[in-house]
Amino acid sequence: MKLPIALSNKHIHLSQDDINTLFGQDYKLTPFKPLSQPGQFACEEKVDLVGPKGTIKGVRVLGPTRNQTQVEISLADGFTLGVKAPIRESGDLNGTPGIKIAGPNGEVELQEGLIVASRHIHMNSNDAKNFGVNDKDLVKIKTEGQRALVFENVLVRVNDSYQLEMHVDVEEGNAAAVKNGELVELIK
Amino acid sequence: MKLPIALSNKHIHLSQDDINTLFGQDYKLTPFKPLSQPGQFACEEKVDLVGPKGTIKGVRVLGPTRNQTQVEISLADGFTLGVKAPIRESGDLNGTPGIKIAGPNGEVELQEGLIVASRHIHMNSNDAKNFGVNDKDLVKIKTEGQRALVFENVLVRVNDSYQLEMHVDVEEGNAAAVKNGELVELIK
Repeated sequence: MKLPIALSNKHIHLSQDDINTLFGQDYKLTPFKPLSQPGQFACEEKVDLVGPKGTIKGVRVLGPTRNQTQVEISLADGFTLGVKAPIRESGDLNGTPGIKIAGPNGEVELQEGLIVASRHIHMNSNDAKNFGVNDKDLVKIKTEGQRALVFENVLVRVNDSYQLEMHVDVEEGNAAAVKNGELVELIK
Repeated sequence: MKLPIALSNKHIHLSQDDINTLFGQDYKLTPFKPLSQPGQFACEEKVDLVGPKGTIKGVRVLGPTRNQTQVEISLADGFTLGVKAPIRESGDLNGTPGIKIAGPNGEVELQEGLIVASRHIHMNSNDAKNFGVNDKDLVKIKTEGQRALVFENVLVRVNDSYQLEMHVDVEEGNAAAVKNGELVELIK
């Protein structure tokens, strides 16, 4: 009942409208390297996040483009920026705060879309059958080692396009002192 | 079986020798505010940590002075500095890396003393009796809420001068989304 874990650093998904403003009209993102989830990729492009208390420079853009811009940071990043971002599932942006985004061609005053991504597991329906879980189940994940811990409330997301992997943010990964690709245990 | 949790940000404990170099001969630290553990205090003074990959400015000095300088950072801070700090109990500095420390009067090339503090619980012998634990026991601590988790391998430290409190670093605290003073549950 093991699966690999991956640490997500702060990043941003952009709409084409916001790409136009930040990088220039009809600008196309430049793939830098593929991510583990099929079709997803890190881009050469980076932007700055400008909050009322501080700025975070060089935040990586992930592709492909999305319908709505989404910025994923850690709780510590929110403190640096001076904005309290809620812990939310990707795509659940209703009522979340915005943030100013600065690119080489201009700035976007994002009205909503700043979140701390809640930890979750990607798996396909075969994996789900093997683990005996269903889409939207909440499970526990146990890590080993000096900083061993058990993450509770871990959301299972099942889609046949998904690669089996648990996603945590850098603070969660460091709290467990786990490395990318390390195997962790699913507990129902 | 509950006790309060506290998040420790990066900080430094200094020997008088290193205070002399960083702030001037026979310089005395200026208390800024008392900490929860009796006799411990945050100081007005701050220093910079200068690593091979990056610098962290404004790291708070804690008092009183110690026999040996000890720098406590997070795993993420170690990445920023470009130094791999081990997860260690306070005072267990043998074989740990050093770091360059910059103060207003000079610089110290610390030879060892850079650690990520391992999570632990301070309690007095009465608390220990109430919780049914002993000095150096490893216990589990359970947190509640959206990011509920169970920290394993939590070291119990018993001393009658201690105030009951669990100490985690900022990454561990944010991984659990707990606030200073929040109550957590001890599990044997």
